[in-house]
Amino acid sequence: MNDRIDEITNNLSRKRISESTIRRLSLYYRALSLLEKEGYETVSSKELAKREKLTPAQVRKDLSFFGSFGTRGLGYPVAELRRQLAAILGIDRQWQVALIGVGNIGSALVGYKEFVRQGFQIVKLFDNDQRKIGSNHKGIVVSDIADLESELKADSIEMVVIAVPATVAQYIVDDVVNAGIKAILNFAPVNLRVPSDVYLRNENMSMELEYLSFAIVNQHAQKRVRT
Amino acid sequence: MNDRIDEITNNLSRKRISESTIRRLSLYYRALSLLEKEGYETVSSKELAKREKLTPAQVRKDLSFFGSFGTRGLGYPVAELRRQLAAILGIDRQWQVALIGVGNIGSALVGYKEFVRQGFQIVKLFDNDQRKIGSNHKGIVVSDIADLESELKADSIEMVVIAVPATVAQYIVDDVVNAGIKAILNFAPVNLRVPSDVYLRNENMSMELEYLSFAIVNQHAQKRVRT
Repeated sequence: MNDRIDEITNNLSRKRISESTIRRLSLYYRALSLLEKEGYETVSSKELAKREKLTPAQVRKDLSFFGSFGTRGLGYPVAELRRQLAAILGIDRQWQVALIGVGNIGSALVGYKEFVRQGFQIVKLFDNDQRKIGSNHKGIVVSDIADLESELKADSIEMVVIAVPATVAQYIVDDVVNAGIKAILNFAPVNLRVPSDVYLRNENMSMELEYLSFAIVNQHAQKRVRT
Repeated sequence: MNDRIDEITNNLSRKRISESTIRRLSLYYRALSLLEKEGYETVSSKELAKREKLTPAQVRKDLSFFGSFGTRGLGYPVAELRRQLAAILGIDRQWQVALIGVGNIGSALVGYKEFVRQGFQIVKLFDNDQRKIGSNHKGIVVSDIADLESELKADSIEMVVIAVPATVAQYIVDDVVNAGIKAILNFAPVNLRVPSDVYLRNENMSMELEYLSFAIVNQHAQKRVRT
């Protein structure tokens, strides 16, 4: 099993994976987790495709790319494929995450069960508000943002979620980068500059609504927007 | 100007636009808004590309597809291109949005300034918690979810954001669809079934973290993840 995953990872290291492929892997992983809970031992590409509103050909292509092949008439082994996808996505382990900015969005993220379920554990909180610093927020004591760099280093944090106002986000991300963090998810509606060896993702929830308004305004252009 | 946009919209109705293209249009729109504020009258494809970490060729391709061509040596007219993109994205107007589920995430979304800035106005809130129903939440009185269908119809709501627990999300979305809503943004971590004439987008914030964990685990596969 581990050899198999090493082989897949070696394969991956020679290929370039698109954003939408990774997104689909996350979707397959979710579908397989549910199928496993429902007691299924195998699943066909057709069934997986139906659950994720994709074509069976797309599913087979994606999974063969990652080294998994279904057996004709039997389909894919649910539990094993789920474990393989977890390893590929890097969610077969726990990640220590720090959240910066305990405002509206930050507070919602501390309680976001989906993070925990996928192995992302928020273990540190930072804010600059004196009323929040030192207070307990769902079991985590809020640290002073002034100590950001040193505390991130001391606590071997691997990922950081930024939920501060747009105006200060670049200063914050600079400190985060100086602390040696290589993976950042940014909720501030601003483009942040990071060195090329740092992975940065921007979450802008308004963009999803713009996708919907685009779809409505141009609805003759496409019958249905992929979800 | 309006003829121009009609022409573009007509063009669009014969083409199929990818998810990532629409995402890039949203990014260009943001960059142009900022450039306009900074006092720029024109912008080159090179500068736009730099701001959004894309290639100039990609920018020119996207914008030519939407009928906009820069002038050699001058670039694109900032204000006009911003207005054109707003019309294409359907954000040159206000959208009346209802939010269902005033929990952690719902509360954060009510205060999400980026929604208002892009023309998405949350004008109705629904919850099933008797302690919340009738209370005022940032200027909006929370309605009883039991009245969902009739109130959505009565208030000519055009878009709905669902922020309820996964276990009840399908029941809620059925009511929303019955009320005639055609555009839904879902935050519940579950795949919802909607008729083919309804546009549904799923926002799963954990997927962005999975993208980061994938990037770290497979970092030899790609030097840098697109943001």
